Amino acid sequence: MTSPKLQTTVDVASMAERARSAGRSLARADRNALLLAMGRQLKAHQAEILAANAEDLASATGTVAAALLDRLMLNEKRLDAIITGLHQVAALPDPLGEVLEGRTLSNGLLLQKVRVPLGVIGVVYESRPNVTVDVAALCLKAGSAVLLRGSATALHSNRALIQAIRVALAEQGLDPDCVQLVDDPDRASVTALLGLRGKLDLIIPRGGSGLINHVVENSLVPVVETGIGNCHVYLDDSADPQMASDIVFNAKVQRPSVCNAAEKLLIHQAIAPALLPSICTRLAQAKVEIRGCERTRALYPTAKPAATSDWDMEYLDLIIGVRVVDSLEDAIGHINRHGSQHSEAIVTQNYAHAEKFLAEVDAAAVYVNASTRFTDGFEFGLGAEVGISTQKLHARGPMGLRDLTTTKYLVRGSGQIRQ
Amino acid sequence: MTSPKLQTTVDVASMAERARSAGRSLARADRNALLLAMGRQLKAHQAEILAANAEDLASATGTVAAALLDRLMLNEKRLDAIITGLHQVAALPDPLGEVLEGRTLSNGLLLQKVRVPLGVIGVVYESRPNVTVDVAALCLKAGSAVLLRGSATALHSNRALIQAIRVALAEQGLDPDCVQLVDDPDRASVTALLGLRGKLDLIIPRGGSGLINHVVENSLVPVVETGIGNCHVYLDDSADPQMASDIVFNAKVQRPSVCNAAEKLLIHQAIAPALLPSICTRLAQAKVEIRGCERTRALYPTAKPAATSDWDMEYLDLIIGVRVVDSLEDAIGHINRHGSQHSEAIVTQNYAHAEKFLAEVDAAAVYVNASTRFTDGFEFGLGAEVGISTQKLHARGPMGLRDLTTTKYLVRGSGQIRQ
Repeated sequence: MTSPKLQTTVDVASMAERARSAGRSLARADRNALLLAMGRQLKAHQAEILAANAEDLASATGTVAAALLDRLMLNEKRLDAIITGLHQVAALPDPLGEVLEGRTLSNGLLLQKVRVPLGVIGVVYESRPNVTVDVAALCLKAGSAVLLRGSATALHSNRALIQAIRVALAEQGLDPDCVQLVDDPDRASVTALLGLRGKLDLIIPRGGSGLINHVVENSLVPVVETGIGNCHVYLDDSADPQMASDIVFNAKVQRPSVCNAAEKLLIHQAIAPALLPSICTRLAQAKVEIRGCERTRALYPTAKPAATSDWDMEYLDLIIGVRVVDSLEDAIGHINRHGSQHSEAIVTQNYAHAEKFLAEVDAAAVYVNASTRFTDGFEFGLGAEVGISTQKLHARGPMGLRDLTTTKYLVRGSGQIRQ
Repeated sequence: MTSPKLQTTVDVASMAERARSAGRSLARADRNALLLAMGRQLKAHQAEILAANAEDLASATGTVAAALLDRLMLNEKRLDAIITGLHQVAALPDPLGEVLEGRTLSNGLLLQKVRVPLGVIGVVYESRPNVTVDVAALCLKAGSAVLLRGSATALHSNRALIQAIRVALAEQGLDPDCVQLVDDPDRASVTALLGLRGKLDLIIPRGGSGLINHVVENSLVPVVETGIGNCHVYLDDSADPQMASDIVFNAKVQRPSVCNAAEKLLIHQAIAPALLPSICTRLAQAKVEIRGCERTRALYPTAKPAATSDWDMEYLDLIIGVRVVDSLEDAIGHINRHGSQHSEAIVTQNYAHAEKFLAEVDAAAVYVNASTRFTDGFEFGLGAEVGISTQKLHARGPMGLRDLTTTKYLVRGSGQIRQ
């Protein structure tokens, strides 16, 4: 068998056309066998993949931060973890073919709404090479072809990973063009993808707010926005003190760099004197910088003053904005004004307050007495996720395999015509 | 009670902010009582509405086609039909609060995915004033506020209709800003709406392809495209001749101006000699212009030659493109290449061919042995529809009340933190 050629052209329109044609056979193929074959080929290509990654690391060293270098780095252990991820996706239920609705109309037509592949998905993402394999696996399992546009930093790694995936596609009798790398690190290639109305069915940007805004502002293709999280924990006047402290600490400190970490703490004025100083002290001991409103600083004078802009910021760091609020209504109003509609939590013992918060806070996930850190496809039982949608259309919250599909109506008749 | 002022500013950003604030109480309001109150107020304001409509008709006479004038015209009977429509929407099941999924996670968190309002919807549409009331009713029933941007031709009618709706909102103790008219006939007001990222949750364009393309190409707000239909009927080699003729005739002639009417006829070569001449003759007798491929013209010489561009066109008129195809595969390939993914039909007695067509044709609705004309919210049992989506994200096919909602995850805990 000759190895399929790696796609290097940047004629994204014809890439998308080839992807559509290649992807038509996916819905009827054994997609789980394909994922396992991808795992075997990644292992078989391990030497090339790690060599390519070493090249990326060598170019990046000295030009990017240490944390970013670590995210870029692959080794045997990490490649094995990626392969384990493929096995996990293979074990998930097949999203395709599910009958979502069905009824017989009064004229005898049998109507069914069934889940089918989207077609061709574009994913634009930053640095981490594991995303290349994770996203390809989810798209293929959902029956769609995918165009992957990774970052310049990971270009050699992505070439090697996608080459292995394409070998696996060929081995399974499928067209390698089901997975193609947009092999051009220039932003022009992103812009070209965004113009492919009618040729791409969905664009998913995964990365910082700069990338996401660029995609939303320039795309003619439908977009699902992922990931900005300015999440709040609100401590109601009836909050259990120990639970309140534990949830705030967990939501802020357990992994501050992710989108479901808390960025803001709101405390009811009635319990602020009793709770705020001890919680802030506990956070400060974990090296969290406290930025407080005036009432916060009156109770915890070492807090820095919060600027107006703080209330809208996603820090992704050991920083928290703290504000004393007058009431539950004040807290809900603040969250609906400043939140990013990602994950919001109340800590309360009051039933009516819990239900009001659940009903009135406008976000993908609203919690009572739990950490915001649970907003995640694995935690929610969806299996792997392709991102966390903060928009309201198509998918909201963790996007699993089902959110990478669409539906169609099948209508079976016996000669019905409309009167 | 003083009548609420009609919204006349074109500061669309602050209109959207007022709409969001006004709409927050809708989910908990008696929205069915509101729809009935709207009906009463439309009747109470009948004189003003018909006078305003007469003004629009006077301005339009002589400048637009007679068919368009007819679509613009309101009279007592048509207003009563609009009011009956409100009663029908009131009778539909409430889409809000439905629990779509629910489970208890292994850590004890109770997770529920529930249906909630979108928030603020923008609708940009052309001429027919009944759309103003229909769309407002569907958005309100789905718990969302709405900004309506109708056409210049219907401006006075829309002002009067929306004034009556706002009186009904006030009468029910709701904020009239739940329904606002973007009272500026200039296209700049459409462009301003399209820029309201974060302030509008959805834009729906209803109208011709010029309007829809303008919206898709310029919107930063998520869009659901509606309505372009280049629909096909394919007659398989095993088609029942009478059923084939009846379905083609119905799909083309029963109402040629709508998006689910057939625009193209594909006939298997094996039955073309027996079927094509009689079907074309029957269509021609109903004043349908036949544009055929070469093989069609060999069998039916009075057909005009079809141009290459014909295969991609939506005529919305008594015109049909006819092509003889070699096989089922040829028909599916033609449809997937040239169709607009709206409604596609096969007429066949062959089980395997029926199933292959259903599986492989990529469209919102795929039919076996029935007219494409059934793709419609009422016919499909969804109740009233806000349009027919031809995109794959969020809604595909007839968009009912559910498609005007989003979901959120409610998570009830007892102090859970993430390890």
